[in-house]
Amino acid sequence: MVNIGIVGFGNLGASIEKCLENFPDINLITVFTRRKPDSINSKVKVDKFENIDQYETEIDVLILAGGSQKDIPEQGPQLIRNFNTVDVFDNHAEVKQYYTKMNKIALENNKVAVVSTGWDPGLFSLERTLADAILPKGNTHTFWGPGLSQGHSDVVRRVPGVKYGAQYTIPNKKMLDEARQGKKIEYSTATAHQRDVYVVLEETADSEEVSDTIKNIPDYFAPYQTNVYIISEEEFFANHQGMPHGGTVIRLGETSQQVKANFEFNLNLSSNPEFTASVSLAYARAAARLAAEKNYGAKTVLDIPISYLSSRTKSELLAKYI
Amino acid sequence: MVNIGIVGFGNLGASIEKCLENFPDINLITVFTRRKPDSINSKVKVDKFENIDQYETEIDVLILAGGSQKDIPEQGPQLIRNFNTVDVFDNHAEVKQYYTKMNKIALENNKVAVVSTGWDPGLFSLERTLADAILPKGNTHTFWGPGLSQGHSDVVRRVPGVKYGAQYTIPNKKMLDEARQGKKIEYSTATAHQRDVYVVLEETADSEEVSDTIKNIPDYFAPYQTNVYIISEEEFFANHQGMPHGGTVIRLGETSQQVKANFEFNLNLSSNPEFTASVSLAYARAAARLAAEKNYGAKTVLDIPISYLSSRTKSELLAKYI
Repeated sequence: MVNIGIVGFGNLGASIEKCLENFPDINLITVFTRRKPDSINSKVKVDKFENIDQYETEIDVLILAGGSQKDIPEQGPQLIRNFNTVDVFDNHAEVKQYYTKMNKIALENNKVAVVSTGWDPGLFSLERTLADAILPKGNTHTFWGPGLSQGHSDVVRRVPGVKYGAQYTIPNKKMLDEARQGKKIEYSTATAHQRDVYVVLEETADSEEVSDTIKNIPDYFAPYQTNVYIISEEEFFANHQGMPHGGTVIRLGETSQQVKANFEFNLNLSSNPEFTASVSLAYARAAARLAAEKNYGAKTVLDIPISYLSSRTKSELLAKYI
Repeated sequence: MVNIGIVGFGNLGASIEKCLENFPDINLITVFTRRKPDSINSKVKVDKFENIDQYETEIDVLILAGGSQKDIPEQGPQLIRNFNTVDVFDNHAEVKQYYTKMNKIALENNKVAVVSTGWDPGLFSLERTLADAILPKGNTHTFWGPGLSQGHSDVVRRVPGVKYGAQYTIPNKKMLDEARQGKKIEYSTATAHQRDVYVVLEETADSEEVSDTIKNIPDYFAPYQTNVYIISEEEFFANHQGMPHGGTVIRLGETSQQVKANFEFNLNLSSNPEFTASVSLAYARAAARLAAEKNYGAKTVLDIPISYLSSRTKSELLAKYI
């Protein structure tokens, strides 16, 4: 059994508890929160974040389920002193810096830090690296969606006149199909995706003004084909409460001159936080094994053999999974 | 630089040499053959298999490119005494026994044996295990093709009256599409595939008799929807000399009750032997690294971190691939 704690109980933290039923070898000891423990709807013990060090001997691995902007960069380097950790740090541009910091402290304290799990970064990182290693000649493209983007939805909700909003990232199906057929594509993040925005207006708001404002937000919307749909509050609560997501990593490679090889990985997820939670749970298993082997330091998904994620025995894997 | 030797120079051995241009950090020293060295069309030195032990100090990793029925089970346990090896042993039912044998001898001799690389077993094994670990609740299905099956083509060619023959395995597109849509499918190898056979007849052969004989071969054809097409020798040599292949691993999972998560991996390969060669070359890199770390014994694709397959530095992987 691997005894875990969850740090933070937003969408991801709650999903980790929910998905645990699929991981019978993992035992949730405590949820840690900076909110009032009484306000947390968990089936296990909830304690204040400030009490966490009392659990040092009881917990094998902490899963850091907070945000990547402030929570994880602050909590990771603190918690890795006393705990093995798994996190979902997802700021691609800062992974290297974060990894380096975590690696140093983990090594000093004989701990394991599995950083940037989830699916992107995470499984997509793994597939991109695998495709690149096997097909050194080629181009890798990532298509995100169809799916709800939390970050873009937040931006929409900050536009004056918007009462509720949800943003879906939609991959360019024509381009993706062309890639699948082995055709060369003119990929850029903006040409490969469109953005569909569903908005409930404040009573006094002007629909055209809100729509124009959204479409012209630099970086987030301006470079993209953006569609804004004004909907009723009723429709919003009926159809836009889910958090589906997914995407595709595709490498158009050549094994030799003009001999094509297409490598493709797809995820189609009804619940982004639940899948991310499931990935972090499998890596919690890996973290416990690495710690048991005294293989300390920070690890990414690229550093950990796939067998470490599985609860199956070596014998079973050899007999049925190879 | 990793110095390699290739043992066996059929389709796979020749493809390894051809694909080397994409692996500038791998250097081919010698091709070993049991045929006459003069008869081998290689750009590098070709030597007799019986002289192989003379290369012990020169070669870091041998890639065993022979057949899985007789060559590899015989050569592997012999060669692992003096060399690190990578092989493409592909008999699923016997992987465990072969691994166990190779592991024992590798450990006794401080060598690394990477067994059963390629794509199935190989990458498909890796994806099946990954999907199963992250989505413990669900069903994994493997669809092979569209592609040329060497084994089935051999069986066709042994039917009396057949001059030339090629067999293509075609996945059931309707079933695959249903799986992609998250529908539950009634998968069996036979319902999930059909077999298209292209045959050139001997002059005296009866087309209906040949067709019936093929369709009724137990295990290979009888359980499948099998189509036999009689074609001219001209058409055969124009259209059936390639070795395309590929396939799909798909897991229909649930992260929690009724919450679906689809995980899918696809390969679409113009040349099966060239892609298999490319996979074995990436694992030759890994074998050399494992040996340098004195991490001896037999390893499968499940035991080796993805970063070991890549020629990129840790810093580059962290900055650009995570």
